[in-house]
Parts: sequence; C-alpha cells; structure tokens
Amino acid sequence: MTDVESGSALAPKWDAAGLVTGVVTDASSGELLMVAHLNEEALRLTLATGEAHFWSRSRGSLWRKGETSGNTLRVVEVRIDCDQDALWLRVAAAGPACHTGARSCFYRRLTPGGELEMIGELGEDGAV
Amino acid sequence: MTDVESGSALAPKWDAAGLVTGVVTDASSGELLMVAHLNEEALRLTLATGEAHFWSRSRGSLWRKGETSGNTLRVVEVRIDCDQDALWLRVAAAGPACHTGARSCFYRRLTPGGELEMIGELGEDGAV
Repeated sequence: MTDVESGSALAPKWDAAGLVTGVVTDASSGELLMVAHLNEEALRLTLATGEAHFWSRSRGSLWRKGETSGNTLRVVEVRIDCDQDALWLRVAAAGPACHTGARSCFYRRLTPGGELEMIGELGEDGAV
Repeated sequence: MTDVESGSALAPKWDAAGLVTGVVTDASSGELLMVAHLNEEALRLTLATGEAHFWSRSRGSLWRKGETSGNTLRVVEVRIDCDQDALWLRVAAAGPACHTGARSCFYRRLTPGGELEMIGELGEDGAV
C-alpha cells in the first residue's frame, strides 16, 4: 500500500477540475441522501463550520447546502477513501436533502426493463 | 421538476468523459463500500449480468469488479439520483470491496486536527 492509502496525512486527490466526490449519508439511518462535489475551499469550510459545503459544477460557485432552502446538513463524521478522491459525509439533515423535496435524491430505482420506478411518493413532505 | 427528475425514462447525464458516479453500498448493512465510475457500457453490462462493472479512469479500461481478486459485487438494486448523474448500486459483496483488503474503501476518518485516523484494523481479513 502507498502512503496515500495507509497514512494519516490528508492529501485529497483533486481531479482536473479541482474536485473530489462527496457521498452524503444520514448518520442515523445510513440512507444515501445525495452525491455532490467538493473543492479545497468547500472541504475547508465543511471542516471549519461543521456544515456541508460543496462546489456546484452547474453554477460554478461554492455552495453551503441549505443556504436558500434551510435544509442544511450538519456533519457528524467525514471519512475518506483509499486513494483519497472521495469523501463520505455522515450527516444530520435539517430537512429533505434533495432540491425536489425528497428526503434523498435517490428516489427512483431501475427496473429490469431499463425504466425508472419511483420509490414511495415524491413530495415536499419528504415522503421519499 | 423536469422530466429528467420526475420521469420514468433512463437518461444518464454522462460527464465530459462519458461517466457517471457510482456509489456502492452493502445491501444488507447499508455500509458505504466504494465509489467508482460507470460509462454507458459499464452500466449496460451491470444491468445485463447483475455484476458490478465500472470504468477505470486510471487504467482507461472497462472493469468487472472482482475479475482478478474474485471479490465480485452482485447487484441487488440500482437507483439513480434526481439529475441522473449518479447511480447507487446496492450490492452483495463476495469479499472485501477495497483493493487494500479492507471491507470498505472508507477505513479512515478525518480528525478535528485535519489528520486521518484508521477505523479498526486494516487487513486481508476485511476487519475494517
């Protein structure tokens, strides 16, 4: 194993756009809530404030999750993977994590026929 | 909401490299095992065979997880996120998911001091 894999030094492997993948799960239920990206500043702010920050690739700007919706994510623990190009944020969510109003962004499953099928009801009540 | 977000048509939003993010969790325990990437062919083969396939960005080649190690991932369910640029693979793992021998690639947490701390022991026995 390399030092990056076994060592205690944080050395994120930023991609060409300066990003790593961020996987967000509910710290209580373990449910996968969302996937987003972090640049160095988003990681710094996440660690400094305890609130999840990301880099929005579509808007090209730093983003504190919930800054407009109020649905913030309080970070309980951050883990990193073997080659340090993905972060796992275990969080306590103040509300639905998805901008659609769903509790999780992953509210559809693929069927054997290759279509998408809704899991539960999608709505503002976070039923999904 | 857009059709991509609410519809039943599978329309992955491939990035500039033709990839979407794949988040892999243990279907029983819910544990996050690994993060990898899928191109269109990897997704097709994953759905057709029920075994997780990825695109290796470092090797630049298609990859059936476990093809050399034997540590395959049988896919129990595939979900997709709101904007269809991330897949969630819920799997039954035949062995450690990480090439280091750890059960999960996420065997280190970030400490308040900004260092990495091992969770459990890292070893071939998949203790982590």
